[in-house]
Amino acid sequence: MSGEDAPAQQQNAVDQKQETKPVEEPKTETESPPAAGAAEAAATPAATTEKVPEEEAFTYRALVLTGYGGYDKVKLQVKKGKPVLKAGEIMVRVKACGLNFADLMARQGLYDRLPSPPVTPGMECSGVVEAVGEEVTDRKVGDKVMVLSRFGLWQEVAVVPAAHTFLIPDGMSFEDAAALPVNYITAYMMLFDFGNLRPNQSVLVHAAAGGVGIAATQLCKTVKDVTVFGTASATKHETISEGGVTHPIDYRTKDYVEEVRKISPKGLDIVLDPLGGSDTHKAYNLLKPMGKLITYGTSNMLAGQKKNLLAVAKNWYHQFSIHTLSLIQGNKSVCGFHLGYLDGEMELISQAMDIVLDLYKQGKIKPRIDSTWHLEQVGDAMRKMQERNNIGKVVLTTEPMPEEEKKEEPKKEDKKEDKKKDDKKKDDKKKDDAKKEEKKDDKKKEEPKKEEKKEEEKKEEPKKEEK
Amino acid sequence: MSGEDAPAQQQNAVDQKQETKPVEEPKTETESPPAAGAAEAAATPAATTEKVPEEEAFTYRALVLTGYGGYDKVKLQVKKGKPVLKAGEIMVRVKACGLNFADLMARQGLYDRLPSPPVTPGMECSGVVEAVGEEVTDRKVGDKVMVLSRFGLWQEVAVVPAAHTFLIPDGMSFEDAAALPVNYITAYMMLFDFGNLRPNQSVLVHAAAGGVGIAATQLCKTVKDVTVFGTASATKHETISEGGVTHPIDYRTKDYVEEVRKISPKGLDIVLDPLGGSDTHKAYNLLKPMGKLITYGTSNMLAGQKKNLLAVAKNWYHQFSIHTLSLIQGNKSVCGFHLGYLDGEMELISQAMDIVLDLYKQGKIKPRIDSTWHLEQVGDAMRKMQERNNIGKVVLTTEPMPEEEKKEEPKKEDKKEDKKKDDKKKDDKKKDDAKKEEKKDDKKKEEPKKEEKKEEEKKEEPKKEEK
Repeated sequence: MSGEDAPAQQQNAVDQKQETKPVEEPKTETESPPAAGAAEAAATPAATTEKVPEEEAFTYRALVLTGYGGYDKVKLQVKKGKPVLKAGEIMVRVKACGLNFADLMARQGLYDRLPSPPVTPGMECSGVVEAVGEEVTDRKVGDKVMVLSRFGLWQEVAVVPAAHTFLIPDGMSFEDAAALPVNYITAYMMLFDFGNLRPNQSVLVHAAAGGVGIAATQLCKTVKDVTVFGTASATKHETISEGGVTHPIDYRTKDYVEEVRKISPKGLDIVLDPLGGSDTHKAYNLLKPMGKLITYGTSNMLAGQKKNLLAVAKNWYHQFSIHTLSLIQGNKSVCGFHLGYLDGEMELISQAMDIVLDLYKQGKIKPRIDSTWHLEQVGDAMRKMQERNNIGKVVLTTEPMPEEEKKEEPKKEDKKEDKKKDDKKKDDKKKDDAKKEEKKDDKKKEEPKKEEKKEEEKKEEPKKEEK
Repeated sequence: MSGEDAPAQQQNAVDQKQETKPVEEPKTETESPPAAGAAEAAATPAATTEKVPEEEAFTYRALVLTGYGGYDKVKLQVKKGKPVLKAGEIMVRVKACGLNFADLMARQGLYDRLPSPPVTPGMECSGVVEAVGEEVTDRKVGDKVMVLSRFGLWQEVAVVPAAHTFLIPDGMSFEDAAALPVNYITAYMMLFDFGNLRPNQSVLVHAAAGGVGIAATQLCKTVKDVTVFGTASATKHETISEGGVTHPIDYRTKDYVEEVRKISPKGLDIVLDPLGGSDTHKAYNLLKPMGKLITYGTSNMLAGQKKNLLAVAKNWYHQFSIHTLSLIQGNKSVCGFHLGYLDGEMELISQAMDIVLDLYKQGKIKPRIDSTWHLEQVGDAMRKMQERNNIGKVVLTTEPMPEEEKKEEPKKEDKKEDKKKDDKKKDDKKKDDAKKEEKKDDKKKEEPKKEEKKEEEKKEEPKKEEK
């Protein structure tokens, strides 16, 4: 775990040159050129910054992953120096950022698209254009934009290629704009490019209350008579049903394969699989002839705050591998998707985004924000998502945190919740870890009291989990 | 090789009960019910035939695979007894039959959808409805139909469920109708269901002069600005270019991967792979992000007349197997297709057929018949296809063979060619075995002079190859 012990105090803009070292490309031969300098530039202002007089004056807060590990490895720091823009780039004053599962994997060192720490994570944000580099013709200062990048967006100022930005439609909040890109582009490309979803088909959406799950459900409902099976803990069923899930399944108390078969004995047309491991096998077996399994993550690898070697090994051991002869005999399709590996394909992404924004303008889709957190609260925000306590998107805001909240930080999650989410049901607080049943035994040593923990015990939780 | 030594002379309707024994289902869990009794019924009239007075009078010729092996294992025999129809079935007086690669694999015992010999092969035919069973409302005596079945159609009389038949459009010949179903439904479902082909995309079609290759090329051209790369031996390039292939590639003299990269450095959106083995790996590596590999056969296993254990082993050894993590990192899709394993899905097949027939009526597609052969000539017909000397579909006709042709049987292929295919270029006669370069070493022992053989030597060929 390199970087684990890097002193967090030293992380500032000058130290970040390290981030520009080339990231290893995946071994499967993608023909696209290596990731454009977008995110690197954004995350390494120092490298391109000249010692201009205003440098000392220009500072901005940034979240920095200081080493692989628990929630506390992401620190809020101050970077200095105004970035100099290269041709084609713009500088964005960031308003809100989206959290994604890849960010959680990255924190544990399980996501190879993030350079080694210290590094600023963050794949999506929204904000206002503050400066425009040469050769940028379609963005101007003051434009409200959404941004997609391989990393580097969890900070107040981000420098990105204009081509990685999308204009925010009138009336869309910065929170919604930060919540939309990764989840909706992912769901759209999976369902409509690989999945080729058509009327009367059936889809299984795992983690149907998560960001991609909600996006996928909404997109399924844009096609006539699509049946959506959605897994989530029972407390979330009412919400996801309202959102379009035809058959909610509590995977914690029931075997979702059996539940699907009861209703759809022949199986399914599409399974979206963010879990990996043995769930991918189940997904494959649930496919009808001409069915498509689209796997887009390995969230089963995430067990606990820090990298859980047993969970990782188990996931690898159970990793799905398929021979073409089996595919032929089954008339099946297995697809892999991850937006993080698609950053060389902005044309494809833009096409998808255009359609998604069009659906938004028609009122057919709308991000559901679970909760919004200050940068200082990123640890709690990540915890909420990793422990599956969210329904919808977990968002960070760059808005400064009020002083009174800071003093009571141990309680901040509850306060925030009380303030912003009064309508949120108490029940939702219950743990909802994906596949907890399955991993119970593995987890016991690390988190002996995990299942018994209740919201009121949360103050002590950070210490417990860091053992 | 069970059945290898079954005495061919005893093959008649009464002996065919054996064919009804259940075929083992593939191990990948398909949820569809086991293959309907369609083909079994067709191939086993004796089992359902009552001793009616007309039994002795009712005879029909049938091709029967008497054991696994070379071209001579398919014998022309006479079956006796008028089949009794079950509810939902019709009896078809067969006019023409299509040859498919699966039939060649089946002859060598490499296709598990054909019951053990003795059995009548044949997955598609055209003909006229001669009798209609109870509960059949949408077919009547005299209707011209195309038929799809798992096997059992290479005979003058076939009994099939009405649901496995399609009305032949006005003006379509029996030959075209026998050539259309398997190739066009296969190409359509691969390109438009799994492949999701869209304008401006690029497709690699292997064996572009074969039945599926020509169908796929024609279907690609129904979408705007699709670039088709097609492999075939040089002598076939003019024909396939006229048919719509944008970039013909002679795989025998050039590395097709390099040729594709020269024109399309980023790779391809879709690769249709009938070859299997190491070519599937190449196909996968040629995919762009969001690209789809659709594998639909293992023709690389076919080397020589009889089962070539080395070729089979090599294919298994090189068989493509993929981990989901690689798929995720590559943003790729791997699909398997084979119509022979899709016979429980007549609804899906009918939907595809409706579209295909509509395109036919609009003049956008039309089967290309390479050559038509009498039932007696099935061995030569199979040889033509297996040695890749065809451009388009190889078809059997049930029309009786003129006596004068029978006497000169050693020369029959040339005569037939002279008579029916005067327009066919001499050049086309050259050998065009798929992947011959690659297999050269393996083949030398079995077929020492294969590459040197020319059309004028063909008279002696059967003896040479049967050693």
